[in-house]
Amino acid sequence: MSEEKTNLDIPKMDIKNASKYEEVSPAVVKRLPRYFRYLREVIRQGKTRVSSSELSRMMNVTASQIRQDLNCFGGFGQQGYGYNVNYLYTKICELLGVGCGFRALVIGAGNLGSALVRSSMFEKRGVDVVAMVDVRQAVIGKKIGDVIVYSMNDLEELCEKFAVDIVILTLPKENAADASERLKNTKIKGIWNFTGKELDMGDCDIIVENEHIGDSLMTLCYEIESRMTDGVNKEK
Amino acid sequence: MSEEKTNLDIPKMDIKNASKYEEVSPAVVKRLPRYFRYLREVIRQGKTRVSSSELSRMMNVTASQIRQDLNCFGGFGQQGYGYNVNYLYTKICELLGVGCGFRALVIGAGNLGSALVRSSMFEKRGVDVVAMVDVRQAVIGKKIGDVIVYSMNDLEELCEKFAVDIVILTLPKENAADASERLKNTKIKGIWNFTGKELDMGDCDIIVENEHIGDSLMTLCYEIESRMTDGVNKEK
Repeated sequence: MSEEKTNLDIPKMDIKNASKYEEVSPAVVKRLPRYFRYLREVIRQGKTRVSSSELSRMMNVTASQIRQDLNCFGGFGQQGYGYNVNYLYTKICELLGVGCGFRALVIGAGNLGSALVRSSMFEKRGVDVVAMVDVRQAVIGKKIGDVIVYSMNDLEELCEKFAVDIVILTLPKENAADASERLKNTKIKGIWNFTGKELDMGDCDIIVENEHIGDSLMTLCYEIESRMTDGVNKEK
Repeated sequence: MSEEKTNLDIPKMDIKNASKYEEVSPAVVKRLPRYFRYLREVIRQGKTRVSSSELSRMMNVTASQIRQDLNCFGGFGQQGYGYNVNYLYTKICELLGVGCGFRALVIGAGNLGSALVRSSMFEKRGVDVVAMVDVRQAVIGKKIGDVIVYSMNDLEELCEKFAVDIVILTLPKENAADASERLKNTKIKGIWNFTGKELDMGDCDIIVENEHIGDSLMTLCYEIESRMTDGVNKEK
């Protein structure tokens, strides 16, 4: 049934056959999550083909930039026909490791940890949140969404038991260094760090991705301030 | 007392005299929040001067990139002496509008809204959260941190009453369009959008900054997947 191809199921992938586009530049990689989001939108609209100029309008990027980006990993477009949406979505999912079935554990069952777990963020990216941990007795044993909160004492054991790939740090800044020290003794592959604290992972090969939510607030303030200053200058 | 100069107080600024570095490129602007964060760290360590090579090590950017960036807005460095930390911090705060005293209102008093309001994010950037709104009777009238939750019905009135500059959208995606429509009738200057929904602001000159938290999760998955694939290739 060809219609099935346009749903939003996460394509399964075989890691051994994972695409090897090793020359993709970091700048393109940074844009891939945006392509992922927009392609999901296109699929949701029921389209099976999309042109670079349509994507260009949606994403506010030039069509030539889009063609260039998509060429980097094989160029699945056909002049005059546009791109096969489902094929493109599958390829981008592959590139991003969306079908790998990574397993995540969240440290901190506070507001931020709960907000993340309750959002659709993980599900739609094919990441499975298998556990949360916290130090507060009051929340240990509770469920946030579908996820059980365990004791922080059992961190290493839980990483082992659930074969955790990614740990998400939403605990207070002051405790970030301790947590990352303990994680060095596990087999996890990556840390998604919301604490605002730089982690020193030494020689261990855990990849750290820092999330600084406040940075885009500052960009917004900058834009507003620039516009206000412009206004003031014009009035002079 | 000269020591006072190295504290983390937010420098007051006069919008009319706000620095006019209109040629600062978007790429540099994107990096300014990072400078802001690292300079706060340097100040916290009690240092009054910092060299481009020290900043370079901390920030994992080349020293020449740092010199180039800081030259864009005046170049406050002195060969062999490094940068005056406090001066640099003040200038960057000015550029970013940190001292402008912007006032923010948060739509949505759920986990994400609460996490944001309870964090130190706003305070350290000089943004004052004056109110939250929600549709749920159970939370209206309550306080999250120091901030009172009002009814979503009073949104426009609250924006007027509190002279709100920035509205932060943490409500469900489905309600984002309605909220942004209503905001077109207010005098707010910017929207910080966490809903994942693109907002169509039409001709009104409200600046929208979209926050896609999930994007950096995907970057992390990509890095992990690339490393795993590399490993598999090497084993062959």
